[in-house]
Amino acid sequence: MKVVSTRNSEIRRGPEEWFTGVVWMDAASAGSSPDAGIFRVFFEPGARTNWHTHPEGQILYVVTGEGLAQKEGEQVVEIGPGDVVYFAPAERH
Amino acid sequence: MKVVSTRNSEIRRGPEEWFTGVVWMDAASAGSSPDAGIFRVFFEPGARTNWHTHPEGQILYVVTGEGLAQKEGEQVVEIGPGDVVYFAPAERH
Repeated sequence: MKVVSTRNSEIRRGPEEWFTGVVWMDAASAGSSPDAGIFRVFFEPGARTNWHTHPEGQILYVVTGEGLAQKEGEQVVEIGPGDVVYFAPAERH
Repeated sequence: MKVVSTRNSEIRRGPEEWFTGVVWMDAASAGSSPDAGIFRVFFEPGARTNWHTHPEGQILYVVTGEGLAQKEGEQVVEIGPGDVVYFAPAERH
Protein backbone atom coordinates (compact mmCIF):
# COMPACT_ATOMS: atom_id res chain seq x y z
CA MET A 1 0.00 0.00 0.00
CA LYS A 2 1.29 3.43 -0.94
CA VAL A 3 -0.56 6.65 -0.10
CA VAL A 4 0.26 9.75 -2.09
CA SER A 5 -1.17 12.74 -0.29
CA THR A 6 -2.05 16.01 -1.97
CA ARG A 7 -0.59 17.68 1.11
CA ASN A 8 2.89 16.67 -0.05
CA SER A 9 2.39 17.21 -3.75
CA GLU A 10 3.74 20.12 -5.70
CA ILE A 11 1.66 21.75 -8.43
CA ARG A 12 3.34 23.06 -11.57
CA ARG A 13 2.30 24.65 -14.86
CA GLY A 14 1.58 22.09 -17.58
CA PRO A 15 4.29 22.15 -20.26
CA GLU A 16 3.59 24.13 -23.46
CA GLU A 17 4.29 21.07 -25.64
CA TRP A 18 1.31 19.36 -24.06
CA PHE A 19 -1.20 22.16 -23.52
CA THR A 20 -2.65 25.30 -25.06
CA GLY A 21 -3.65 27.83 -22.40
CA VAL A 22 -2.97 27.69 -18.69
CA VAL A 23 -3.03 24.26 -17.05
CA TRP A 24 -1.90 23.27 -13.56
CA MET A 25 -0.94 19.72 -12.71
CA ASP A 26 0.70 17.55 -10.10
CA ALA A 27 4.44 17.74 -10.50
CA ALA A 28 5.31 14.11 -9.82
CA SER A 29 3.88 10.89 -11.13
CA ALA A 30 2.46 8.80 -8.33
CA GLY A 31 3.38 5.73 -10.36
CA SER A 32 3.54 2.53 -8.37
CA SER A 33 2.23 -0.98 -8.72
CA PRO A 34 -0.29 -1.31 -10.41
CA ASP A 35 1.81 0.45 -12.98
CA ALA A 36 -0.19 3.59 -13.64
CA GLY A 37 0.40 7.27 -13.09
CA ILE A 38 -2.32 9.42 -11.59
CA PHE A 39 -2.32 13.16 -12.11
CA ARG A 40 -4.73 15.84 -11.06
CA VAL A 41 -4.99 18.36 -13.88
CA PHE A 42 -6.73 21.75 -13.63
CA PHE A 43 -7.64 23.60 -16.82
CA GLU A 44 -8.17 27.34 -16.66
CA PRO A 45 -11.11 28.47 -18.84
CA GLY A 46 -10.33 27.86 -22.53
CA ALA A 47 -7.25 25.74 -21.86
CA ARG A 48 -6.94 22.36 -23.57
CA THR A 49 -4.49 19.58 -24.29
CA ASN A 50 -2.84 19.47 -27.68
CA TRP A 51 -3.64 16.44 -29.86
CA HIS A 52 -1.80 13.47 -28.43
CA THR A 53 -1.86 9.74 -27.81
CA HIS A 54 -0.87 7.42 -24.95
CA PRO A 55 0.87 4.09 -25.64
CA GLU A 56 -1.09 2.46 -22.80
CA GLY A 57 -4.27 4.51 -23.14
CA GLN A 58 -5.74 6.90 -20.60
CA ILE A 59 -8.73 7.21 -18.32
CA LEU A 60 -10.10 10.59 -17.24
CA TYR A 61 -12.32 11.10 -14.22
CA VAL A 62 -13.97 14.51 -14.06
CA VAL A 63 -13.95 15.71 -10.44
CA THR A 64 -15.44 19.14 -11.06
CA GLY A 65 -16.16 21.68 -13.79
CA GLU A 66 -17.30 21.14 -17.36
CA GLY A 67 -15.36 20.43 -20.49
CA LEU A 68 -15.17 18.95 -23.95
CA ALA A 69 -13.54 15.70 -25.08
CA GLN A 70 -12.89 14.57 -28.64
CA LYS A 71 -11.35 11.67 -30.49
CA GLU A 72 -9.71 13.04 -33.62
CA GLY A 73 -12.19 13.08 -36.51
CA GLU A 74 -15.18 12.30 -34.31
CA GLN A 75 -17.84 14.24 -32.48
CA VAL A 76 -17.07 16.57 -29.55
CA VAL A 77 -18.61 15.29 -26.32
CA GLU A 78 -19.51 17.44 -23.30
CA ILE A 79 -18.18 16.07 -20.02
CA GLY A 80 -18.93 16.97 -16.42
CA PRO A 81 -18.49 15.87 -12.82
CA GLY A 82 -18.45 12.10 -12.32
CA ASP A 83 -17.97 11.34 -16.01
CA VAL A 84 -15.33 8.81 -17.02
CA VAL A 85 -13.60 9.04 -20.40
CA TYR A 86 -11.60 6.12 -21.84
CA PHE A 87 -8.99 6.59 -24.55
CA ALA A 88 -7.65 3.39 -26.09
CA PRO A 89 -3.91 2.90 -26.58
CA ALA A 90 -2.63 5.11 -29.44
CA GLU A 91 -6.02 6.76 -29.90
CA ARG A 92 -5.40 10.38 -30.89
CA HIS A 93 -7.51 12.79 -28.85
CA MET B 1 -12.99 7.16 -26.94
CA LYS B 2 -15.77 6.04 -24.68
CA VAL B 3 -17.59 8.35 -22.30
CA VAL B 4 -19.45 6.84 -19.37
CA SER B 5 -21.72 9.46 -17.90
CA THR B 6 -22.97 9.45 -14.34
CA ARG B 7 -26.29 10.59 -15.78
CA ASN B 8 -26.81 7.10 -17.21
CA SER B 9 -25.35 5.12 -14.34
CA GLU B 10 -27.34 3.22 -11.82
CA ILE B 11 -26.33 3.20 -8.16
CA ARG B 12 -26.80 0.06 -6.08
CA ARG B 13 -26.02 -1.15 -2.56
CA GLY B 14 -22.58 -2.73 -2.26
CA PRO B 15 -22.86 -6.50 -1.71
CA GLU B 16 -22.58 -7.82 1.86
CA GLU B 17 -19.74 -10.18 0.90
CA TRP B 18 -17.61 -7.15 0.08
CA PHE B 19 -18.64 -4.57 2.67
CA THR B 20 -19.56 -4.09 6.31
CA GLY B 21 -22.09 -1.28 6.77
CA VAL B 22 -23.92 0.63 4.08
CA VAL B 23 -22.06 1.32 0.86
CA TRP B 24 -23.40 2.65 -2.44
CA MET B 25 -21.63 2.05 -5.72
CA ASP B 26 -21.99 2.26 -9.48
CA ALA B 27 -23.88 -0.76 -10.73
CA ALA B 28 -21.91 -1.42 -13.90
CA SER B 29 -18.22 -1.60 -14.59
CA ALA B 30 -17.17 1.01 -17.08
CA GLY B 31 -14.47 -1.39 -18.25
CA SER B 32 -13.05 -0.62 -21.66
CA SER B 33 -9.61 -0.35 -23.18
CA PRO B 34 -7.35 0.37 -21.27
CA ASP B 35 -8.64 -2.65 -19.43
CA ALA B 36 -9.65 -1.19 -16.09
CA GLY B 37 -12.94 -0.80 -14.25
CA ILE B 38 -13.77 2.49 -12.59
CA PHE B 39 -16.33 2.63 -9.81
CA ARG B 40 -17.55 5.46 -7.64
CA VAL B 41 -18.06 4.10 -4.15
CA PHE B 42 -19.80 6.00 -1.32
CA PHE B 43 -19.32 4.81 2.27
CA GLU B 44 -21.90 5.78 4.85
CA PRO B 45 -20.29 6.68 8.21
CA GLY B 46 -18.64 3.60 9.74
CA ALA B 47 -18.92 1.48 6.60
CA ARG B 48 -15.83 -0.31 5.31
CA THR B 49 -14.70 -2.94 2.87
CA ASN B 50 -13.99 -6.41 4.19
CA TRP B 51 -10.39 -7.65 3.89
CA HIS B 52 -9.73 -8.46 0.26
CA THR B 53 -7.21 -8.48 -2.56
CA HIS B 54 -7.23 -7.63 -6.28
CA PRO B 55 -5.34 -9.82 -8.79
CA GLU B 56 -4.38 -6.71 -10.78
CA GLY B 57 -4.13 -4.31 -7.83
CA GLN B 58 -6.26 -1.24 -7.21
CA ILE B 59 -5.96 2.53 -7.13
CA LEU B 60 -8.24 4.68 -4.98
CA TYR B 61 -8.78 8.38 -5.55
CA VAL B 62 -10.55 10.15 -2.69
CA VAL B 63 -13.01 12.67 -4.14
CA THR B 64 -14.54 13.80 -0.87
CA GLY B 65 -14.85 12.89 2.80
CA GLU B 66 -12.33 11.33 5.14
CA GLY B 67 -11.43 7.72 5.79
CA LEU B 68 -8.92 5.12 6.86
CA ALA B 69 -6.85 2.75 4.72
CA GLN B 70 -4.80 -0.21 5.89
CA LYS B 71 -2.63 -2.93 4.47
CA GLU B 72 -3.11 -6.05 6.59
CA GLY B 73 -0.63 -6.08 9.45
CA GLU B 74 0.52 -2.51 8.89
CA GLN B 75 -0.36 0.93 10.19
CA VAL B 76 -3.75 2.55 9.58
CA VAL B 77 -3.42 5.67 7.41
CA GLU B 78 -5.87 8.60 7.33
CA ILE B 79 -6.96 9.57 3.83
CA GLY B 80 -8.81 12.61 2.54
CA PRO B 81 -9.77 14.51 -0.62
CA GLY B 82 -7.21 14.31 -3.42
CA ASP B 83 -5.30 11.44 -1.85
CA VAL B 84 -4.34 8.49 -4.02
CA VAL B 85 -3.92 5.00 -2.54
CA TYR B 86 -2.16 2.21 -4.44
CA PHE B 87 -2.65 -1.46 -3.58
CA ALA B 88 -0.29 -3.86 -5.30
CA PRO B 89 -1.63 -7.03 -6.94
CA ALA B 90 -2.67 -9.59 -4.29
CA GLU B 91 -1.96 -7.14 -1.44
CA ARG B 92 -4.53 -7.79 1.29
CA HIS B 93 -6.12 -4.59 2.53
